[in-house]
Amino acid sequence: MQLQHQRIGILGGGQLGRMLVQAAIPLDLDIRILDNDAAAPCASLTPHFNVGDLLDYDAVYQFGQQCDVLTIEIEKVNTQALYQLQREGKRIYPQPHVIELIQDKRLQKQFLIQHSFPTADFVLTDTLDQLHQYAHWLPAVHKIGRGGYDGKGVQIIHNQEDIRKGFDAPSVLERLVPIHKEIAVLVARNERGEIRTFPAVESVFHPEANLVEYLFAPAALPEDLRQQAEQLAESLIEQLDMIGLLAVELFWTQDNQLLINELAPRPHNSGHTTTEGNPTSQFEQLWRAILNLPLGDTATIIPCAMVNLLGEEGHSGAVLYQGLRDVLEIDGAHIHLYGKKQTKPFRKMGHVTIADHDTDRLRQKAELVKNTLRVISK
Amino acid sequence: MQLQHQRIGILGGGQLGRMLVQAAIPLDLDIRILDNDAAAPCASLTPHFNVGDLLDYDAVYQFGQQCDVLTIEIEKVNTQALYQLQREGKRIYPQPHVIELIQDKRLQKQFLIQHSFPTADFVLTDTLDQLHQYAHWLPAVHKIGRGGYDGKGVQIIHNQEDIRKGFDAPSVLERLVPIHKEIAVLVARNERGEIRTFPAVESVFHPEANLVEYLFAPAALPEDLRQQAEQLAESLIEQLDMIGLLAVELFWTQDNQLLINELAPRPHNSGHTTTEGNPTSQFEQLWRAILNLPLGDTATIIPCAMVNLLGEEGHSGAVLYQGLRDVLEIDGAHIHLYGKKQTKPFRKMGHVTIADHDTDRLRQKAELVKNTLRVISK
Repeated sequence: MQLQHQRIGILGGGQLGRMLVQAAIPLDLDIRILDNDAAAPCASLTPHFNVGDLLDYDAVYQFGQQCDVLTIEIEKVNTQALYQLQREGKRIYPQPHVIELIQDKRLQKQFLIQHSFPTADFVLTDTLDQLHQYAHWLPAVHKIGRGGYDGKGVQIIHNQEDIRKGFDAPSVLERLVPIHKEIAVLVARNERGEIRTFPAVESVFHPEANLVEYLFAPAALPEDLRQQAEQLAESLIEQLDMIGLLAVELFWTQDNQLLINELAPRPHNSGHTTTEGNPTSQFEQLWRAILNLPLGDTATIIPCAMVNLLGEEGHSGAVLYQGLRDVLEIDGAHIHLYGKKQTKPFRKMGHVTIADHDTDRLRQKAELVKNTLRVISK
Repeated sequence: MQLQHQRIGILGGGQLGRMLVQAAIPLDLDIRILDNDAAAPCASLTPHFNVGDLLDYDAVYQFGQQCDVLTIEIEKVNTQALYQLQREGKRIYPQPHVIELIQDKRLQKQFLIQHSFPTADFVLTDTLDQLHQYAHWLPAVHKIGRGGYDGKGVQIIHNQEDIRKGFDAPSVLERLVPIHKEIAVLVARNERGEIRTFPAVESVFHPEANLVEYLFAPAALPEDLRQQAEQLAESLIEQLDMIGLLAVELFWTQDNQLLINELAPRPHNSGHTTTEGNPTSQFEQLWRAILNLPLGDTATIIPCAMVNLLGEEGHSGAVLYQGLRDVLEIDGAHIHLYGKKQTKPFRKMGHVTIADHDTDRLRQKAELVKNTLRVISK
């Protein structure tokens, strides 16, 4: 069927959906969106925006029936409806079995172990009480199995005092490994089994919000580790038998090991520099993968940094961007606002990509952007 | 006023409007569109699409009243309505006096002469009969004063036989100058008077359709001519007292002169490589110029070629793209379809930008794209 005649649905109309819609325009793809929120970032972008609960079977099933191909920009969707749609012949990429696995951090961890992928040691816990058994393991990270997102559902348990911060629900307790850096690799795979990875990127986290604050692409990584990271990503997408785009977050430990931290079966915050720094953006790559087109070139054109624009603490309400003009003065800075009308502390409101051939200047510019642009309320 | 709260209108919802809308998304600009055609390329891109006659006073005036800032993607608009809106305090960029001048090739030519800009010798003609007086001038180009577009309204008069092909309406008869290449420079200017030019590009025309077929950026131009071309563009936008984006098409003559051919006060076909080849695209630069933001960096990141996708001769009707997958195999090729549902011979249906650091390979890839992708009807 001609590309332009396939009816394509995206579950989720947030910022990742917004950038998927942007990448779909040059290919003239016929896109429709489903989101819980009538004011989601995609709402103003297309006449084909539908409001419905992404976790509701009927809402997802009915939306899916209007589509030939379905993808996601968020994992929190009703997978039972997706299985049913798949049985009825719809192309659901990533496939429901992948979404289901990644929805649950416990299943994700078990998958990694079963397939001999390197990952930090862990135990499964079902109640808060059980954490006391693992006092000798501390410090450790407690991650809720299902429903965590954007740093929520994750607690560092430094000592026995902290145990009360843990989750009284099915969770993973993971040994805290001394790490050098966090890195990420994006990998795409299409129906024909063609695979392409983007060069690894490195990220710096905000200490309080547990959200990526800076990102540098490509990561400054020894050649052997770079290759290893890319091979892990390729092997993962194959073992998952996944079609689509997979984000693989890794720890580069202080003893030079790579450990797989988490997976996301969709476009990802760590891939935002691909819009300016690579011939193919992560968003276009997802379209190529799920529409069984040839995958695009992923080579680095120019080194990039990425700064997340988070809602400032103490500010909730109608959003106001301070310093936008100053950032537009910086050569190579690209502003990406998500179109959210309301800000709140640590809400992801946008990001800025900065491109520069000189990596020292790049870091300086990233710092400048971070200190210049403020997301506040009126 | 905060950038996101300004109501911005675009007169015209064709492909240039479509790419303006794309460039407006990351800045979260509030855009509405007016176009004659309910199936225009912008119609599927925004819920704020209005149908109305761009040459009708009331349609333009009423649309403009819902806006704070108004721009164009086509010159064929009612300028009387724009003058009235300007008097009422709306910001109309480019200004109505610039649009009016450029709508009429006779006024445009006279402006160039009055301000001592280099341009091919010409005479004004009012009737077809008058052409016989200038038989000694032939070969020459006859251009209709008002209403020409995309190669229509232009005839080459090689000899007296051809005179019947001319226009029996107010026109310009321009001496045909032996040219080496056609080049183009895009220049932007904001309210503060800040000016930035993009590096000159060179174009190759389709001999029959009189439309740009290939474009190479940056142009292979001797340094002194490159500087001269950019200075001419800067001087033109200043002399026009224009705010916005101006495309300046120039002839590089065989005796190494630069002559100004035509002006367009809007994004332009010759600027399409800026989307991949420069940090700031021509579309983002227009927003920066008319919203009085700092102008963006225009340096070349990577050499680019651009191939127009024209509807093939002998094909009219529902469009079909042949060879799309093959072009997606070419590293560095970027497809831009305009979303037009109907094709006809020589209709601009899209373009492909190709980026490559090796300019020989770039030309080969441009040739390959041109021979691979066909726009036909079903």
